[in-house]
Amino acid sequence: MLPNLTPDIDLADELFTGLRAGSTDGEGVTREAYGPGERMAHALVRAAAEKIGLECSTDVAGNMYMTLPGTDRAAKRIIIGSHLDSVQQGGNYDGAAGVLAGMAAVAGMKRAGFVPGRDITVMAIRAEEAGAWFPVSYPGSRMALGLFKADGLAIPRNDSGRSLADHMREEGFDPDAVARGDHALGPHNVAGFLELHIEQGPVLEAEQVPIAIVTGIPGSRRLRQGRVIGEYNHSGATPRKYRRDAAAALAELVHRMDEEWCRLDAVGQVLVCTFCTMATTADAGFTKIAGEATFQLDVRSVSPHACDLMFEALHRFMAGIEARHGVRFECGPETGSRAAIMDEGIRDGLARAADGLGIAHIAMSSGAGHDAASFAEAKIPSSMLFVRNQNGSHNPHEAMRMEDFAKACAVVQRWAAEASL
Amino acid sequence: MLPNLTPDIDLADELFTGLRAGSTDGEGVTREAYGPGERMAHALVRAAAEKIGLECSTDVAGNMYMTLPGTDRAAKRIIIGSHLDSVQQGGNYDGAAGVLAGMAAVAGMKRAGFVPGRDITVMAIRAEEAGAWFPVSYPGSRMALGLFKADGLAIPRNDSGRSLADHMREEGFDPDAVARGDHALGPHNVAGFLELHIEQGPVLEAEQVPIAIVTGIPGSRRLRQGRVIGEYNHSGATPRKYRRDAAAALAELVHRMDEEWCRLDAVGQVLVCTFCTMATTADAGFTKIAGEATFQLDVRSVSPHACDLMFEALHRFMAGIEARHGVRFECGPETGSRAAIMDEGIRDGLARAADGLGIAHIAMSSGAGHDAASFAEAKIPSSMLFVRNQNGSHNPHEAMRMEDFAKACAVVQRWAAEASL
Repeated sequence: MLPNLTPDIDLADELFTGLRAGSTDGEGVTREAYGPGERMAHALVRAAAEKIGLECSTDVAGNMYMTLPGTDRAAKRIIIGSHLDSVQQGGNYDGAAGVLAGMAAVAGMKRAGFVPGRDITVMAIRAEEAGAWFPVSYPGSRMALGLFKADGLAIPRNDSGRSLADHMREEGFDPDAVARGDHALGPHNVAGFLELHIEQGPVLEAEQVPIAIVTGIPGSRRLRQGRVIGEYNHSGATPRKYRRDAAAALAELVHRMDEEWCRLDAVGQVLVCTFCTMATTADAGFTKIAGEATFQLDVRSVSPHACDLMFEALHRFMAGIEARHGVRFECGPETGSRAAIMDEGIRDGLARAADGLGIAHIAMSSGAGHDAASFAEAKIPSSMLFVRNQNGSHNPHEAMRMEDFAKACAVVQRWAAEASL
Repeated sequence: MLPNLTPDIDLADELFTGLRAGSTDGEGVTREAYGPGERMAHALVRAAAEKIGLECSTDVAGNMYMTLPGTDRAAKRIIIGSHLDSVQQGGNYDGAAGVLAGMAAVAGMKRAGFVPGRDITVMAIRAEEAGAWFPVSYPGSRMALGLFKADGLAIPRNDSGRSLADHMREEGFDPDAVARGDHALGPHNVAGFLELHIEQGPVLEAEQVPIAIVTGIPGSRRLRQGRVIGEYNHSGATPRKYRRDAAAALAELVHRMDEEWCRLDAVGQVLVCTFCTMATTADAGFTKIAGEATFQLDVRSVSPHACDLMFEALHRFMAGIEARHGVRFECGPETGSRAAIMDEGIRDGLARAADGLGIAHIAMSSGAGHDAASFAEAKIPSSMLFVRNQNGSHNPHEAMRMEDFAKACAVVQRWAAEASL
């Protein structure tokens, strides 16, 4: 029989306020992975964890573990976590909500004098949004789980030009140990992983439900360095048939891919297709035909087949456009991630906890990728809980009502307490 | 009876070499309007003009006049000229060839002891390529002719943010005098204007003819500050129906305009349509749906009706795309220039000169705009001569064979000598 537990929402609220104050950039918040913003966030949360008496440590990759000890210290632990970094000009909740939910849950346990049967660890994962700067997915969790490929450490950051390893070292971590394969977590020492996250789409708001239990995380196929090579020429004096216009060629590709998505959508394929950036290059200018353009493409689906259909279409369109416009496409390296199914046992446990607390919930698949996908890939039972959120995410206007967050925290806490026994 | 005149091609050759050496940027040449590159070019050409004994002066706008005096100094003069500035990473011939052709022609007259019946002035016009930085067309020639609207002086340059007036003042000129309406030229003191220019398209090369006599200069309708406003959102978690994707919307617009041009082209409308730039903005990035994008549109035709048809299509497409994609287009200020017909008397004179010299020529309309359009608008009889050129223009690879240039200079020289009598 569990004691009467409630999460410490005041603590989470204070920490949200502190995080926002420490990382505001005028528009929203910026907490760069392996940079000053993320550093500030880890220091802030660690101070709070130490104040309530959690055991704190970091691994070679800089991931932080804040542990409420259980009666059986040798038993596999339960981890509640997410990331503290953000995209540039992002919102305060994406990632942070998952860490602070863990803090609220274990702080409430501490307050009630509840001692779990096994360790419950709140994990602050590094660099989940690193993808905004490095072409790598989930480096923090993948390093923690021994899934990270060492050659990714040499990849230069878009803006600084310095490598991921350099940025890690600058923050005091040990990329050499990562390269050697040192890692903290695996199925041998983790019983289950739960990540609370704001929903990054509009579904819960439209359905008027505060939380969702996530069934799966999509995989992706991505081009971050796509290019179109045409030929610069005078925009007035070059008749149509002599042009090799990179802007017109790229526009046609983007539009045809959008039409293809629309077509697949209509026949029930669930996916998203986004040209996140699309641009003529710095050499372009008024009175010139664009000789070069770049693009970034992000295709995601829980169905690998749907991603493949879009990439087949991409290559078909490119061939036709190259022939008609006299341009050449360069896709650059393709990156991506595998789709992940969320653990049925944890999903059932979350549903029981929510039902017990009288909190409405639905099941849905994630649209975005999350660290929980790394844990699932490492064969650790994993799941996610989404909290209703207004205005999407990855922008300064993301929103979440604290009453919805409090309900979600209560579910997290009850599930963790039960699972720890 | 004219003496046996030949242009001084060696002089032009030396000046081309000097110009290239003084404005190379590694890739091509850069001679910014009202900046160091243009300043160097004017100084270089002036030194050569003074050396051969031409009378040199500049007007309030910085246009330079290098005059071979005629027997009747009060008679309306003949002007041979073009501009010395270039686009960024442009070629060495666009503009400069027209000034150096004038130099070669009058230097050859001087050498032969030929004294024209009226002044023949080589004019180095300022800032014909200013459009790459300021949204104004032909400021140098328009200031010389009293056609420039004073409010254009306040327009900030794209990169420096300082006004056209500031940049002019920095070069030692007098924008206040321009604003007062001071100007050097008009139908009362100019009998005719001739501008030699490299052809900026591939027609003469394809037709295997060294020169063309230009029949007309196209007008244009232009948007330099077009924007598409959508909404930033998470690229994974935002289903199709909730998106307001500025990149997809702009791509559709660019593609539909290209299709519309193709359709008008097929029914015989002669025009060009170019999205010179097209880009998601700096806020865009991987894992975001683009919330904003910008574009620059350049539509040109000798037929104002054809430009209007494209702009009607533009507004029709924008309305449809706004409705379907949930975005908003902002066209920004529209600029443009009027089409100009070249003077029949000068065209006949040029044809007679070429025939007399045994030089093959064709008639063609210009694809690009030129200072000659300003002179025509000021009701000064004006025409242009195109020289065959490989690899287009506004790029580092523009080319022109000196033998073709020499033929063109001979035609310019003979026409000017005859017209001066």
